[in-house]
Amino acid sequence: MAITVQILGSSSATPVFNRHHSAQYLCAEKEHFLIDCGEGTQMQLKHYGVKSQKINHIFISHLHGDHYLGLVGFISTLHLNGRKEKLHIYGPYGLMEIITVQFKYSETLLNYPLQFHEIDPNQPAIIFENNDLTVSTVPLKHRIACTGFVFREKPKKLRINKELLPEGLLLQEIADLKKGLDIFDAAGNVLYKNEAFTLPPKPNGSYAYMSDTIFDESIVPFLQNIDLLYHEATFATDLADRAKMTFHSTAFQAATIASLANVKKLLIGHFSSRYKNLDILLEEAVAKFPNTALALEGLTFSLETDSLNFKF
Amino acid sequence: MAITVQILGSSSATPVFNRHHSAQYLCAEKEHFLIDCGEGTQMQLKHYGVKSQKINHIFISHLHGDHYLGLVGFISTLHLNGRKEKLHIYGPYGLMEIITVQFKYSETLLNYPLQFHEIDPNQPAIIFENNDLTVSTVPLKHRIACTGFVFREKPKKLRINKELLPEGLLLQEIADLKKGLDIFDAAGNVLYKNEAFTLPPKPNGSYAYMSDTIFDESIVPFLQNIDLLYHEATFATDLADRAKMTFHSTAFQAATIASLANVKKLLIGHFSSRYKNLDILLEEAVAKFPNTALALEGLTFSLETDSLNFKF
Repeated sequence: MAITVQILGSSSATPVFNRHHSAQYLCAEKEHFLIDCGEGTQMQLKHYGVKSQKINHIFISHLHGDHYLGLVGFISTLHLNGRKEKLHIYGPYGLMEIITVQFKYSETLLNYPLQFHEIDPNQPAIIFENNDLTVSTVPLKHRIACTGFVFREKPKKLRINKELLPEGLLLQEIADLKKGLDIFDAAGNVLYKNEAFTLPPKPNGSYAYMSDTIFDESIVPFLQNIDLLYHEATFATDLADRAKMTFHSTAFQAATIASLANVKKLLIGHFSSRYKNLDILLEEAVAKFPNTALALEGLTFSLETDSLNFKF
Repeated sequence: MAITVQILGSSSATPVFNRHHSAQYLCAEKEHFLIDCGEGTQMQLKHYGVKSQKINHIFISHLHGDHYLGLVGFISTLHLNGRKEKLHIYGPYGLMEIITVQFKYSETLLNYPLQFHEIDPNQPAIIFENNDLTVSTVPLKHRIACTGFVFREKPKKLRINKELLPEGLLLQEIADLKKGLDIFDAAGNVLYKNEAFTLPPKPNGSYAYMSDTIFDESIVPFLQNIDLLYHEATFATDLADRAKMTFHSTAFQAATIASLANVKKLLIGHFSSRYKNLDILLEEAVAKFPNTALALEGLTFSLETDSLNFKF
């Protein structure tokens, strides 16, 4: 399976033109993640047919409303729909207080466990890990504490070359081959040499979500050779001063980060409400980094790991 | 001008079938009001072309998320769009803490004054009054503190009978006629008798919003002869037990209140997510109170005061 990322919202703080606040739905193997959760995210998930109960981990980049105001409603709806499984929320200091005070006044006692993981916005760290991937943080420079997230699949096992595989091998022997081991006979002699029957593993994909941030080259080392990079691009270049003042980026600056980090593909989003037509933002990004796409509502980007080369 | 009420949301807690959380937009003369503000209300206002900056008064019935979770986003968007005018919020204890804690962490300093008016959920009271109308509260019985709102236009001035009006009257004299005064000549003798030149005033309309509540006849005295009553109707009659247990009402119970209070028209809303088709709710209400309508998203109900009889 591949990592897939579905865009639920592309708007900056004031939602217009049927654009929605920041939220993305990421699937990786059997895990389902939500990245940011702006107002209306539960409706967007419903609109795109996502089975929300599958989501076990929510990452909130920062506490500007357009990135988290849908969270209490989403948590509540999971509760009302009978969820029992634990839900993990990763976010900045203060987020749990915001949730707690609202459930105090609504007298809500969730019928599932909610575990909060406070993110240190100043120190990069691995905040999630399972057999298949890690999620690590990237400190971002915004007006308030803000964190980017990098999803990296772990190296995968060797693939069996089925055309060459001898018949009658035990499951355990096939598992050993996938791990890179040779197969031995009863006397301890090499029966099948590993490299003769295996192919290189599928590539391990990576996705980075760089939420609200000023143009900041210090994040480049965290993003080297990332397959798919989402970087905010609130403004066009003529408003570079305003971008700097508000700790946001231009589309060209997002493309510059993509270029410096040598990523494979760039997604831009978090568009200012002044742009009804987004062509200027895409054009300015593409001029610097050709493989750029707009992170528009409903689009799904897949890191196709069926071949050795990612397709977009 | 008439009171008009536009429905922005008709859903109970879990929004489905493109229904939205509770919110209504009410206009009365020159004042614009928002009643409840569920998640996504700012998008709904935008969708229906409402000029949000005109809204100066927001009434929140209670602190279940489906009735207020859009408030912080709405307040923020007004701020980002340059509002300077004071915004009044009327709601239960706890609401201001919920707003404040979120603006603390987002480091938001509003560029307009926000004045909070705490509602006593146990005592009916007039909480707003201007030259044209009053807004008063009705204590409701729900799982948490909950308040209904009644909007009553004040008695209006007499209308001038233009066909009979003599030419050459001064503006002040016309104003006096509207107030019910006679017109005198310089010697102090009655020149024009008031009743000869005036018509009865347009009727003063009334609207009541009865948010989440168990079936409760004690609210009937507050609703006597109301022109337009919104009463929640979460369930059909077969789930009357569930309605009672969750402190909600059935459509038939809403209609019973309308009938007991002798209102002119009933709107029902806050529909449970189990009803994709709402026919059963409308049918059960109409059986008890024929002049009932579904409070569906986008519908505008107008208390037409151009005639002496309200039209719906």
